[in-house]
Amino acid sequence: MPSDPSKADLPDAARGEEALIAEFWAPLSIGFDGAFDLKDDCALLAPPPGTELVVTTDAVIAGVHFFPDEDPGAVAWKALAVNVSDLIAKGAAPFAYLMSIALPQMPDHAWLEKFTSGLRAAQERFGCRLAGGDTDRTPGPLSVSITAFGTVPAGSMVRRATARPGDLVYVSGSIGDAALGLALRRDPAMRERLGLDDADCRMLAGKFSRPQPPVALAQDVRACASAAMDISDGLIKDFERLCRTAGAGGRIEVPRVPLSDAARAVLAAGGTSLADLVTGGEDYQVLATIPPEHCAEFERRAEQSGTRVTRIGVITAREDGIVATDADGGAIAFDKTGWDHFRAAV
Amino acid sequence: MPSDPSKADLPDAARGEEALIAEFWAPLSIGFDGAFDLKDDCALLAPPPGTELVVTTDAVIAGVHFFPDEDPGAVAWKALAVNVSDLIAKGAAPFAYLMSIALPQMPDHAWLEKFTSGLRAAQERFGCRLAGGDTDRTPGPLSVSITAFGTVPAGSMVRRATARPGDLVYVSGSIGDAALGLALRRDPAMRERLGLDDADCRMLAGKFSRPQPPVALAQDVRACASAAMDISDGLIKDFERLCRTAGAGGRIEVPRVPLSDAARAVLAAGGTSLADLVTGGEDYQVLATIPPEHCAEFERRAEQSGTRVTRIGVITAREDGIVATDADGGAIAFDKTGWDHFRAAV
Repeated sequence: MPSDPSKADLPDAARGEEALIAEFWAPLSIGFDGAFDLKDDCALLAPPPGTELVVTTDAVIAGVHFFPDEDPGAVAWKALAVNVSDLIAKGAAPFAYLMSIALPQMPDHAWLEKFTSGLRAAQERFGCRLAGGDTDRTPGPLSVSITAFGTVPAGSMVRRATARPGDLVYVSGSIGDAALGLALRRDPAMRERLGLDDADCRMLAGKFSRPQPPVALAQDVRACASAAMDISDGLIKDFERLCRTAGAGGRIEVPRVPLSDAARAVLAAGGTSLADLVTGGEDYQVLATIPPEHCAEFERRAEQSGTRVTRIGVITAREDGIVATDADGGAIAFDKTGWDHFRAAV
Repeated sequence: MPSDPSKADLPDAARGEEALIAEFWAPLSIGFDGAFDLKDDCALLAPPPGTELVVTTDAVIAGVHFFPDEDPGAVAWKALAVNVSDLIAKGAAPFAYLMSIALPQMPDHAWLEKFTSGLRAAQERFGCRLAGGDTDRTPGPLSVSITAFGTVPAGSMVRRATARPGDLVYVSGSIGDAALGLALRRDPAMRERLGLDDADCRMLAGKFSRPQPPVALAQDVRACASAAMDISDGLIKDFERLCRTAGAGGRIEVPRVPLSDAARAVLAAGGTSLADLVTGGEDYQVLATIPPEHCAEFERRAEQSGTRVTRIGVITAREDGIVATDADGGAIAFDKTGWDHFRAAV
């Protein structure tokens, strides 16, 4: 405690956590009043009257969710994107997040600049600001645990359990690109072996390292969907979860699953299988069930908001089971239905 | 994806994360509707009209915040308690929390039972329920990152920056016990060397491993305090932060700082110093500034709610600096003012 009052307001580089907060984290909170410049114990969230708060938390850990040598900006982007993905699937508009970060050592200035640039780009893309957090040292790997907040008009959060037989099943974007991006990262020789071009490889790698959840779709999901969730652990596994939670059966017609041109090229070159693409995980797209009478409106709205949506199946009665079918309508058996973060690693 | 519908609802022990959630985490969410039995992507928080949400996040990491061989129930208790401590200091009533846990391996049943018992005891003590979370595997140490939610009547969150010259400074409970508990844990021979009795050692150890933030004090802080924060990194360091954030000076009269009988015994036996006690950290008590006209009411209310509060100093003008004084009124210089989680470890 300095007894010299002239020192009381000097920033002190030796303070570690506090200097980090003031220089790197606090600028990310500008414009969010309830963050109090990250100088208080807590943040204050005052959702507008008539709204409710939707909250989620997901962590990304080096060596589990991203490669230890990943670009720090991509780590930050992904940490926020995987949380925003959950909010979008619930029809919620993201507005704030908390970040609990565990650092193996005090990072250097260049690392911090890259990390915060990635975080800033993500929060601008997704429409939310840093409201608070916690910075710790860890003897383990870098870990970034984010809690994200969105709002919905009261009573309008889109649940997972509310799918009904007869509802049609849609996905946003394309499926399997991130799994291919991961495969390319693990096996760079794949590129030459399959004759993939630069642009395709960059796109696939980007889908794994900087996922782009379809933020503009949130309002369309809220307007039209009977149920929704995000696809993080593989389309098949997550579809199975949605059906089970709803106490329903369901069918996905695998040939209808939307693929990017790059994924089609890899598939054509024999570098992957449809099964790998629909069970690969890390898509961060929306899986939604739409009652038949709202399908036209959902498609129209999605087109207006610039988000690709594709009908891939239907919710059925529980006794019909949960199945994925091939072009002939036959059931496909999978060795694994998806990714288990608890068991797998990058 | 099972094509046999009879299997669709069977729990599958091989699922790892999902089985863990259903068996161990979901029971902790019972009674909190917005948790949806932990079967949805997000939780829904619907604060009553006229209230605002106070949120905080803090992580505890093995080898940094607790000993790797700590009792799992104590780890869970501490993970929640350190967050609730922040809410109480803001005058907020805790009601829900999210838990993001990273496990080095799939824990066995006995570990999980101890962990969830500790968490259940803590949430019952603090009046909150599990609303959601995230479970991951990590190549690093066990880490538990909690985000806790409390409510306050709109506009009544107690800030850190709003202390004013002339306000009197109070702390709850006693200071330095956790630091002694940590010292005893590091150096068990200290006990015999200083001739400490069983009950004292147990109390001190418990203050470190299962902190007891004064939950009943939240409403008194809200009713009377001009500013408040929790004491987590050492009384002196946190007081300095409070004064700086408020742009004020302040004085703590160290001989007034409340000590437990056990701490007095250790002090008398030469096992610690007053400086160690007021800079040791991990107290999880409340540091509050009370305008003089509200002091009598604050003391009366605290007595009614069964919480010890002690006046230890005063907020002064910025130009008077931030000082700690001894019995003669002389300024005390400290080698370190507190604990920096980023630099220190257990």
